[in-house]
Amino acid sequence: MSVEPVFIDGSWREAAASGAFTAENPAEGTPLPRAFPVSTWADCEAALASAAEAAIALRQTPPARLAEFLTGFAELIERRAEEICGVAALETGLPTAPRLREAELPRTTNQLRQAAAAAAEESWKMPTIDASNGLRACFGPLGPVAVFGPNNFPLAFNSIGGGDFAAALAAGNPVIGKANTSHPDTTRLLAQCAAEALSRSGLPRAAVQLIYRTSHADGARLVADPRLGATAYTGSRTAGLRLKAAADAAGKPIYLELSSVNPVVLLPAALAGRGAELVAEVGGSCLLGVGQFCTCPNLLLLLAGSDAEAFLEGLAARFEAQPGGVLLSRGVLDTLAETVGSLREAGADVVTGGARAARPGYAFQNTLLRVSGSRFLENPRGFQTEAFGNATLAVVADDVEQAAAIAAQIEGSLTAAIYSARDRRDDPAHARLEPALRAIAGRLLNDKMPTGVAVSPAMNHGGPYPATGHPGFTAVGIPAALRRFAMLQCYDNVREERLPDCLRTDCPNPRTWRLVDGAWTRGLGPSA
Amino acid sequence: MSVEPVFIDGSWREAAASGAFTAENPAEGTPLPRAFPVSTWADCEAALASAAEAAIALRQTPPARLAEFLTGFAELIERRAEEICGVAALETGLPTAPRLREAELPRTTNQLRQAAAAAAEESWKMPTIDASNGLRACFGPLGPVAVFGPNNFPLAFNSIGGGDFAAALAAGNPVIGKANTSHPDTTRLLAQCAAEALSRSGLPRAAVQLIYRTSHADGARLVADPRLGATAYTGSRTAGLRLKAAADAAGKPIYLELSSVNPVVLLPAALAGRGAELVAEVGGSCLLGVGQFCTCPNLLLLLAGSDAEAFLEGLAARFEAQPGGVLLSRGVLDTLAETVGSLREAGADVVTGGARAARPGYAFQNTLLRVSGSRFLENPRGFQTEAFGNATLAVVADDVEQAAAIAAQIEGSLTAAIYSARDRRDDPAHARLEPALRAIAGRLLNDKMPTGVAVSPAMNHGGPYPATGHPGFTAVGIPAALRRFAMLQCYDNVREERLPDCLRTDCPNPRTWRLVDGAWTRGLGPSA
Repeated sequence: MSVEPVFIDGSWREAAASGAFTAENPAEGTPLPRAFPVSTWADCEAALASAAEAAIALRQTPPARLAEFLTGFAELIERRAEEICGVAALETGLPTAPRLREAELPRTTNQLRQAAAAAAEESWKMPTIDASNGLRACFGPLGPVAVFGPNNFPLAFNSIGGGDFAAALAAGNPVIGKANTSHPDTTRLLAQCAAEALSRSGLPRAAVQLIYRTSHADGARLVADPRLGATAYTGSRTAGLRLKAAADAAGKPIYLELSSVNPVVLLPAALAGRGAELVAEVGGSCLLGVGQFCTCPNLLLLLAGSDAEAFLEGLAARFEAQPGGVLLSRGVLDTLAETVGSLREAGADVVTGGARAARPGYAFQNTLLRVSGSRFLENPRGFQTEAFGNATLAVVADDVEQAAAIAAQIEGSLTAAIYSARDRRDDPAHARLEPALRAIAGRLLNDKMPTGVAVSPAMNHGGPYPATGHPGFTAVGIPAALRRFAMLQCYDNVREERLPDCLRTDCPNPRTWRLVDGAWTRGLGPSA
Repeated sequence: MSVEPVFIDGSWREAAASGAFTAENPAEGTPLPRAFPVSTWADCEAALASAAEAAIALRQTPPARLAEFLTGFAELIERRAEEICGVAALETGLPTAPRLREAELPRTTNQLRQAAAAAAEESWKMPTIDASNGLRACFGPLGPVAVFGPNNFPLAFNSIGGGDFAAALAAGNPVIGKANTSHPDTTRLLAQCAAEALSRSGLPRAAVQLIYRTSHADGARLVADPRLGATAYTGSRTAGLRLKAAADAAGKPIYLELSSVNPVVLLPAALAGRGAELVAEVGGSCLLGVGQFCTCPNLLLLLAGSDAEAFLEGLAARFEAQPGGVLLSRGVLDTLAETVGSLREAGADVVTGGARAARPGYAFQNTLLRVSGSRFLENPRGFQTEAFGNATLAVVADDVEQAAAIAAQIEGSLTAAIYSARDRRDDPAHARLEPALRAIAGRLLNDKMPTGVAVSPAMNHGGPYPATGHPGFTAVGIPAALRRFAMLQCYDNVREERLPDCLRTDCPNPRTWRLVDGAWTRGLGPSA
């Protein structure tokens, strides 16, 4: 069986491999035909050496060229959309339509175009000028970025073409993509598009590179390499923490998305007033993408009472009415079954589901568990093991004070949502619970489920550890996401002709927002 | 001997101490009279518990109140300026005038006032509004901040009242100050001023707390505590890395300033044209504060030739003309002697100095070492051991290409400076060397020494590891320094009345800059 080549320094070349792997079709539990290499350090070394050179060349590349590449890449993805979505569906079990073709692929190309616009506008650099002190500063590229993409968004978060890729590239950094091993063929197709866009745009040929898999040791060595600027990782907590330890010890920035229970609080008067509506809303969100969204609500917090009971009953019926969907992989299924087992062992009761679904491939019954507030408080860490997939834990608190004690125990999370009555009857309970949730969540929602993550300048897809590795950054949202892959660069008394364009007294780019002597200004007025 | 109390939860209380220590007068090498406690974990625990409560209260505190505290604190410091500078001089050997009284104390109070203005203006929060998506985001406080101040700026970087303190407090976080053990009494006086300002301003009483010393293990436990928001540390690399490892493992942000050689490149035509002028400039900078500035140039890079020889001869004469000043402590002297020894062992030659100075107290001869470029390249890490104090290493490269190879080996640094001829004769050499230096330095200077660090919005006192722990942040410069102690907080569909003021549709603060639907705006026009 021939093994696919890696993409290093502008060419598809035979990997220096220690072995090969295949992906699986999770809908059938059968291996897919193509074999992909497990790279040895030699491939990482080659990619790093080429990326280091590309990083120097990219610093001299006009931002318009970066934008051209990103836009061209988006176009090429669109041209091969059917093929890409077909392969992604095979590898992930996610439906081609509407999910991949109508939602995720357009989101991906939209992200690339937004990143292109941000690169061209240059406002993300936050050029700051203090004329009286002869000081100027802006964010500039950091160096090669290693991107480890997750399994759950084969397009929008793919290590080639996804959000981290777009942000790192738009900030002027070469990307070394490490494919997610459950969708290598999707990643290969995206890299083909990137390769073509690269040669059309004239970016350095090592601006985008791809390897598929390495040993754990080589992954750790990669993120700690002196030539690397930073790493972006989205995936399991265990693997992420291994990389984090290596990067931290080397003083290298690493941005991680690790795990998040995304608490949703349903206050009593809201449940009383619109319980049926909330069953549909919460149920739909919990099962969206078979519960495999980073922002999937894993923990519902309710106050004991007949409205809570009616809601849970309704939610259980909602869960039962829909068959458990295909999970991304055997690994996801195994971990989900294990997590549900450990939640039960800790004292949670199964309301519905709890076992493997009776259908081909990797699937689990839609599962609702419940636990009392006092039991939760006996083991708050144990009950926060993220059940990645279609399982949700409802915590039923005795009263608002107990709910507040529970909220105070919730770990850093991407999101926290609070549903309250529109007539303000829940406002005292809201006021009691909000501060603790605000402190641990990157995004706080009112009367809305967290599973929609708009690509907006005001989005925060981040949060305190263990949701991410640093609470000051977001993985979604442009231009903010670009600044993860940047260093702050001050120019002190530097001669005008040696300054980067965005810091010159007369900035050639009329669209760039700059903070000049304390005021944000740009060439074009705000209405332009 | 009575032991000084710690300041916890608003009162000066007896420490839960495992022992006591005294500071020394480094000008005489004699112990100072006051004894300070080595706190056990019980003090850290008490401080953390109080700080966690204060953090919640501070989130509800209007920014104007924070500003009032910071301004009031600055005034109280000024009122006791003579006493504070007198004690600081005794503890550090730094001259009362001009250094402490005319430079460092005004810098300190200026920083506090700039921080107050930033807190009141609220633009540091970068409020961002995407009206069409119902999304709003801003930076908000992170939680209690532990500040470990360095030995070299007993006022401007003091853990109570210095730059990190001002930034953390202005961002709305309580501070737990850990005094630098070489100037505990200075810190005590500053904390007295802070305590008075606290009660006048009505901030939570645990918004500022002080302990003097802990065991290494308790320090590591403190920075990893779940109740802590972040840590700021400036000091030795060894102690800093111990704290970094503990904070990293707990997923807690830690901002560190560790070590930096601050390379200064002196190009040939500059040396030919203004050699004598440069001797004065470089010499003054190297010996400023007895070489104990974070941005002190530790590494001069020259190209071999008669102008370089003349320069080094002049610099050696300049070093010899001035007696070696008093170092901050016996520890600084010992480490400096050790570092000079290791540089010699690695193959550097002593041009002048190299031994302890013949005067009372802790002092070393002003020391200039030199090494050839080829020898440097044999052991680039070894020759970059920061000699903290009045010692400088000149690296003499054979030619521009060798100099470029050397520049490519320089580790992350706070600054890098390039001197070149005004008639552009050095421009080709500048172009060859600049990219590598730009990539490793937080601040790049032209024709200027790095030892002046203006408190400016366009300053970057930061840089890639090991200069700091993250290249995206600055420790000096307001408002940027505040964002280290903040988390990004998104509000999604949140009801208008529940939004923080700065995110409301009608922002009550007319001075706050906000990014509204892609344009920076504020109530008052830029000219106001």
